[in-house]
Amino acid sequence: MSGSLVVAGLGPGADSLITPEVVQSLADATDVLGYKPYVERIAPREGLKLHPSDNREELARARAGLQIASSGGRAVIVSSGDPGVFAMAAAVFEVLADAPEWQQLDIRVLPGITAMLAAAARIGAPLGHDFCAINLSDNLKPWPLIERRLRLAAEAGFAIALYNPRSASRPAGFARALEILKEAGAGGRLVVFARAVTTPHEHIEVHTLQEARADLADMRTIVIVCNAETRRVGRWLYAPRQVS
Amino acid sequence: MSGSLVVAGLGPGADSLITPEVVQSLADATDVLGYKPYVERIAPREGLKLHPSDNREELARARAGLQIASSGGRAVIVSSGDPGVFAMAAAVFEVLADAPEWQQLDIRVLPGITAMLAAAARIGAPLGHDFCAINLSDNLKPWPLIERRLRLAAEAGFAIALYNPRSASRPAGFARALEILKEAGAGGRLVVFARAVTTPHEHIEVHTLQEARADLADMRTIVIVCNAETRRVGRWLYAPRQVS
Repeated sequence: MSGSLVVAGLGPGADSLITPEVVQSLADATDVLGYKPYVERIAPREGLKLHPSDNREELARARAGLQIASSGGRAVIVSSGDPGVFAMAAAVFEVLADAPEWQQLDIRVLPGITAMLAAAARIGAPLGHDFCAINLSDNLKPWPLIERRLRLAAEAGFAIALYNPRSASRPAGFARALEILKEAGAGGRLVVFARAVTTPHEHIEVHTLQEARADLADMRTIVIVCNAETRRVGRWLYAPRQVS
Repeated sequence: MSGSLVVAGLGPGADSLITPEVVQSLADATDVLGYKPYVERIAPREGLKLHPSDNREELARARAGLQIASSGGRAVIVSSGDPGVFAMAAAVFEVLADAPEWQQLDIRVLPGITAMLAAAARIGAPLGHDFCAINLSDNLKPWPLIERRLRLAAEAGFAIALYNPRSASRPAGFARALEILKEAGAGGRLVVFARAVTTPHEHIEVHTLQEARADLADMRTIVIVCNAETRRVGRWLYAPRQVS
């Protein structure tokens, strides 16, 4: 059998959210690569080699997966959520762009349930109207671009999902992001802090943006700034379909 | 057993993209409700009543599902893709907001693979950087708001997923949307037209926005206007992670 590389999304945490096609790709794999906590979700078995690596090792991991595929192995690179949303798929194609010898390989990207959709489902339907997703990490883009996008997203009236809101190496950015959204007039909007959704550690809080504190988020939190029309009903939130 | 209502996402088309928790909810259901083509994806079995309905019947369908749950049935309302993205979840909560007698019911929303993520995975990683999702239907919002959001999204540099780009009742809106994006300086961007992704009728085309024609899209098409940095490698497209 010739080699292949699958870039697969494991969803937000619960195994009941992993698609059958991803389960099948893992059953067929000879090698699974990924950030350590994601690889730990894969059950070991004979004939399967696990390759956990560090968070910042995306390009090296992509290269390793392509190398295994080119040697005839069936490699699966796992991402949390969806591999195409601030995750491993883009890194694989970046490596591929500089490696013509690998461009004929059998490569597939298998989607997964991304964190914002799992969080939205837990709390109701805050993404039921137009929305955007912004990665707050400024490791790979300049912070002023993030600020600009936050302002334009608020002006457009989008619900705004914020990925990677806060980490130990970037403690100040998220507080600044909340300030910018308030300056843009979004202070009255509801904000969902959804941590570790669909895992045993799931914790969800809702505050108005005005009251929201930056320390409510960490690297395992997805933040949804609801649109201005979003309403509460019982324990739920939803974005009405009708907007005037 | 007391009644319940599940709002479940069937994903974009292939059964291999339906999550195990959705499969389980369908196995437990007494009643499945939804737009006819989605209900047709559910295998009939003894003890399961299927309730197909028309496209524009969202509120009546939501009400029927809640009614079944309040009478002790286990109702599942199915959506294509993810129920929280331009689909049935918001309609259910809208009905619930006016029906206090139903607010204590057991209600769950189960996420699914939404069309933009499935389409993105098929073509590479065009949503690997910040992006937004805009519903081009003006049934429930004024067209000028759609135009404003398109302009701001282009200005922000988002990749833009366009849901419901074109239908028989709205033939002109999508052509106008393409014009607006060109006026906003996005003419050089790549545009993905992904029709019926993950089904036997899947068809994907990529054009520059400048060359894109409105008749490449219909109601089964998701359109992704890539960001300006998006590159091709072989048959793939990807949004580089690094942006300056």
